[in-house]
Amino acid sequence: MAGAHNGVSAKLVERNGFDAIWASSFEISTTYCVPDASILSMSEFLEVSRTMAEVVSTPIIADCDSGYGDAANVFHMTRKYEAAGVAAVCIEDKEFPKTNSFIEGRQNLATIAQFAEKIQSAVRARASADLMVFARIEALVANQGLEEALRRAHAYADAQADVILIHSKERTPDEVLEFARRWKNRTPLAIIPTTYHGITQEQIRNAGVQFVIYANHAMRSAVRAMDQTLARIASTRSSAAVEEEIASMKELFDLQGMKELKAMR
Amino acid sequence: MAGAHNGVSAKLVERNGFDAIWASSFEISTTYCVPDASILSMSEFLEVSRTMAEVVSTPIIADCDSGYGDAANVFHMTRKYEAAGVAAVCIEDKEFPKTNSFIEGRQNLATIAQFAEKIQSAVRARASADLMVFARIEALVANQGLEEALRRAHAYADAQADVILIHSKERTPDEVLEFARRWKNRTPLAIIPTTYHGITQEQIRNAGVQFVIYANHAMRSAVRAMDQTLARIASTRSSAAVEEEIASMKELFDLQGMKELKAMR
Amino acid sequence: MAGAHNGVSAKLVERNGFDAIWASSFEISTTYCVPDASILSMSEFLEVSRTMAEVVSTPIIADCDSGYGDAANVFHMTRKYEAAGVAAVCIEDKEFPKTNSFIEGRQNLATIAQFAEKIQSAVRARASADLMVFARIEALVANQGLEEALRRAHAYADAQADVILIHSKERTPDEVLEFARRWKNRTPLAIIPTTYHGITQEQIRNAGVQFVIYANHAMRSAVRAMDQTLARIASTRSSAAVEEEIASMKELFDLQGMKELKAMR
Amino acid sequence: MAGAHNGVSAKLVERNGFDAIWASSFEISTTYCVPDASILSMSEFLEVSRTMAEVVSTPIIADCDSGYGDAANVFHMTRKYEAAGVAAVCIEDKEFPKTNSFIEGRQNLATIAQFAEKIQSAVRARASADLMVFARIEALVANQGLEEALRRAHAYADAQADVILIHSKERTPDEVLEFARRWKNRTPLAIIPTTYHGITQEQIRNAGVQFVIYANHAMRSAVRAMDQTLARIASTRSSAAVEEEIASMKELFDLQGMKELKAMR
Repeated sequence: MAGAHNGVSAKLVERNGFDAIWASSFEISTTYCVPDASILSMSEFLEVSRTMAEVVSTPIIADCDSGYGDAANVFHMTRKYEAAGVAAVCIEDKEFPKTNSFIEGRQNLATIAQFAEKIQSAVRARASADLMVFARIEALVANQGLEEALRRAHAYADAQADVILIHSKERTPDEVLEFARRWKNRTPLAIIPTTYHGITQEQIRNAGVQFVIYANHAMRSAVRAMDQTLARIASTRSSAAVEEEIASMKELFDLQGMKELKAMR
Repeated sequence: MAGAHNGVSAKLVERNGFDAIWASSFEISTTYCVPDASILSMSEFLEVSRTMAEVVSTPIIADCDSGYGDAANVFHMTRKYEAAGVAAVCIEDKEFPKTNSFIEGRQNLATIAQFAEKIQSAVRARASADLMVFARIEALVANQGLEEALRRAHAYADAQADVILIHSKERTPDEVLEFARRWKNRTPLAIIPTTYHGITQEQIRNAGVQFVIYANHAMRSAVRAMDQTLARIASTRSSAAVEEEIASMKELFDLQGMKELKAMR
Repeated sequence: MAGAHNGVSAKLVERNGFDAIWASSFEISTTYCVPDASILSMSEFLEVSRTMAEVVSTPIIADCDSGYGDAANVFHMTRKYEAAGVAAVCIEDKEFPKTNSFIEGRQNLATIAQFAEKIQSAVRARASADLMVFARIEALVANQGLEEALRRAHAYADAQADVILIHSKERTPDEVLEFARRWKNRTPLAIIPTTYHGITQEQIRNAGVQFVIYANHAMRSAVRAMDQTLARIASTRSSAAVEEEIASMKELFDLQGMKELKAMR
Repeated sequence: MAGAHNGVSAKLVERNGFDAIWASSFEISTTYCVPDASILSMSEFLEVSRTMAEVVSTPIIADCDSGYGDAANVFHMTRKYEAAGVAAVCIEDKEFPKTNSFIEGRQNLATIAQFAEKIQSAVRARASADLMVFARIEALVANQGLEEALRRAHAYADAQADVILIHSKERTPDEVLEFARRWKNRTPLAIIPTTYHGITQEQIRNAGVQFVIYANHAMRSAVRAMDQTLARIASTRSSAAVEEEIASMKELFDLQGMKELKAMR
């Protein structure tokens, strides 16, 4: 699956054949130009997932940070996201407020008991068992080691998480692959190979990992492209030079569904 | 000035040295993946302008379509946008609901009297005379000719519009330049050279046009880049190949203001 | 059914045994303290219906004014309201922007063809035939007479409206009863006896009217009560005197669902 | 000052001559019919304060719970509320997520250092020193005694809080009066006499308390009135009997500002 941050990026993920859309907290925070650190509230994140659900039919996995509070908050959160039409909610075992996993420094974890309670709360809140609950483990990110990560994974699976997302900020996939080897497919596994992007398809397959999340590349490519295009317009004082490199107005009208609108007006 | 659609694109417009940010209805509609045709309500557009105002200090010109109703709606609209921190509101003389100017077919105009009333309403509503009112003329887009466009321009200037935005969908700047020649700088002029991107800086200067709006290029470059990046990840089943072409995580953290956040947490 | 304007008023309508909740545009506009005249956008109204749907199981009829634009707008509107969980959308045959029906002066009607197109658009947009479409006729309010009202009713039923809402601002129920007599139950009828509150249950039953909407009384009683309570506190400089007349903190905690929350925290 | 929860209740507080409006977290949670326990996110609370600021000129004190996170969250929060036009933000020294102070059980407090940091963050964030920062002390509510409450009050005043709000859930004003006596007006004091409503004006004056907050009475009176009115309509199957007891349509149109609207349409 690939990360997205609004309706059109979700549509592009769908159009490129991905199996699911990751409604990325990092990407969405970037659209608001605020830190990915629990600065936006649940309402803004939820609204993006709802917008996506209105324009794509590909399943949406909502990246819900640490669940916006405690188990009671997760209960309300799950109900709202399910009603918004997502396929899954993903919560991580950091304390609220969280800071993005790739930022050095404080990365406090919830206790196993606290987080298991959140998972149970999500499971109890869902109206349909079709709504999946991803439990994201931050023990490796918090430098607490593989044993702690596995201990948490088992506790979360006991609490009925549907998928374990094991996160890592290493440059190599070694710790994630070792985790997968020892997990032995008790439940499906998900990974986010942002820093260890050298991981091969064969490694992923052999490790039995089912979900691979390219979580931030849509936004990172958009930022680079906008920056270059704006720089070119600013320096040439004309848009003639960029005209051939960027999507046409027609392509955007097609993405917007203008043709269907015109049939009604 | 250049168009933007959220906090980060506004920040990139600012960072590239533009004098103002155009909170583009076309770009914002694209983020929701809905037609630029009065499908989003004022609330969504307003929220984007407010988000921008929170993260940039560059002036924001809010593209407010036809004002979301009649003169009474424009009154409320102006108050809300001014409170949101924009530098100007721009309203156009199409009927509600509007359809994007580059779409063939129905482009009904309000009468001159109706639209002049909207301008007066905006002027009366503003708390400070610093808030500028742009009046956008769609007579050329609606194939009603230069004389009608000029008649409207004078009426709108009489109604105290601060800036006249003359819009055109021609491939050449001829009609816009002819309009400017005959307008003789009664008030400042603005143009949106999307289709006639061959217009030169000299032509713009000689015509006495003060505001040039590159209204949609940020979004068009973002769409092209996201599409290519996602296609590459999908076909190679890896993000390794795109890693060098896209903005780094660090660049996005910088844009988000993560460093300032860390100083407080 | 009875009108409501937020989660708690909807809950009180449910608790008092009404069959449905009218998400009243008049009441919701009052909460914002803005005229009931298309000043709020669809987003604010929609959000209220969604909030209600999260806290009641009683069917919600969303009062959607004239549909927030033309047939294309109604299409998008219907999809969003259905996803928000309402049981029905109600659109009226006034032009946008509308003014509340009880206000003298301009009450322009859409043409029959325009409005029939809106109804067809709502019908085509719904995912499930369970979503009902109410067509509200403003011909009597606009002083266009009974024949015009009936002509419109038949055209709207032809366009597949599920319910005809015949509105009147007369002090007596005569014109509404005459309409009902001549309608002969071609489709179910709804009425809003605000001004002709003397209508009896027997008259309603004999006329074959199925839906009676007490559209604004919850808000009107809230305003009166708040005004009196605040006046008393202001004049006595104490809340002791009002303590016995108002709901207890415990009653509000019960309405909020605090007990269920406590079980999770 | 008196509590309010939306535009119209704020307008009624103003119309009854109160000096300020308390944008009550308890009242606003009730409108959504969710527990006053950090279930709503900051966005919903903020939107209510902004709506109030648009329709009243009376100062608004925003009840911001524990600040929606840590000191970094308080920084962002303060900027957003100041831009929304409030006169003051009030934060309390409970942990996030909080539970309403009148609910028995877990009422965990932040440490003095953590909360002082939040106050400093609010002070640093404000653009104008006119924005006041209320620091609300929950030590009495959490049964930690008067000495702890005073220790906290001094630390918060050292951190530059403008006003100390000392909260109590006792049936008598004794502990609050004792606190005031020992505080000796180092900074202005505020109280919320919900449970100890027997406190007299003379006691308040003698104690040197400057701000008295009737925090929940508007909502409590609205709920009682709506419940009774709906019950009467349900049992009589008519609104005739309630007509004289509730505000007229005209009164609500006046509150909405319909007359001013009509002058523009």
